[in-house]
Amino acid sequence: MFSDYAIRVLMHAAQNPERLVTIEQTAAVQGISRAHVKKVVLMLSRAGYLRGVRGRTGGFTLARPPQEIDLGELVRQTEPDFGLVECLRTGNRCVLTPCCGLPPILKRAVRAFIEALEGHSLADIMLPGSPLSLPPEGSAFQPSRSPEASG
Amino acid sequence: MFSDYAIRVLMHAAQNPERLVTIEQTAAVQGISRAHVKKVVLMLSRAGYLRGVRGRTGGFTLARPPQEIDLGELVRQTEPDFGLVECLRTGNRCVLTPCCGLPPILKRAVRAFIEALEGHSLADIMLPGSPLSLPPEGSAFQPSRSPEASG
Repeated sequence: MFSDYAIRVLMHAAQNPERLVTIEQTAAVQGISRAHVKKVVLMLSRAGYLRGVRGRTGGFTLARPPQEIDLGELVRQTEPDFGLVECLRTGNRCVLTPCCGLPPILKRAVRAFIEALEGHSLADIMLPGSPLSLPPEGSAFQPSRSPEASG
Repeated sequence: MFSDYAIRVLMHAAQNPERLVTIEQTAAVQGISRAHVKKVVLMLSRAGYLRGVRGRTGGFTLARPPQEIDLGELVRQTEPDFGLVECLRTGNRCVLTPCCGLPPILKRAVRAFIEALEGHSLADIMLPGSPLSLPPEGSAFQPSRSPEASG
């Protein structure tokens, strides 16, 4: 889920390269909670994907061009151990841990997953027709969800 | 999570090849909820991994030897689309869906993940020292968690 939201936040920023976007705007447009967006933005800023500007008119923007944001690297940084099974997460209480040979096999599989994402950039997955472009800075913010058009 | 529990349920059955194990026993030994175990057992029975016997003294057992349970096949059957991101799950409401090129890349990555599991069987991941062996059938069931020994 973390990578899922990370990609959405980055796409939102990438679709609005000329302006700073805010946590509130991202949460509203994407329909995800402000708390989740905040957590993701903080982490992406620390990892060098976003650059933040503080203050009332602040917000965040991509820290590097979308062509230079590799999806494999992004997933590796945002989900270090993937936590697919309990024994790969902190607080593991699986009783099988001492007698289970799954972890090394699973780690290899996660590596294969990430390698398949490598070489694909944020720019590669941004197709035309985005509903994420915001109105010019300064105008009242309106979430730009497309209406439920009947065809 | 589903595959995680599926593997635990199968390991539990595999460690007790001479008897039928029950949902209650599995839940107690593994420390996971009875409802989760029930759901997983039902699904694994439908998929041909478990064979159930109804009735008061009923339970379930592996429907095939652990050597013939391939982990790649198991994960493919228990998590068909993996649902890693919202757009791969039912009820998708991600606003990016019409303009996002991620799904095909992600599907290839999931395929790579599963391929890395293929060729590894349930038998391969069952190392010695299991805490899952139950007492002989008929004796009162005691979860066989190893005591918190001091060394």
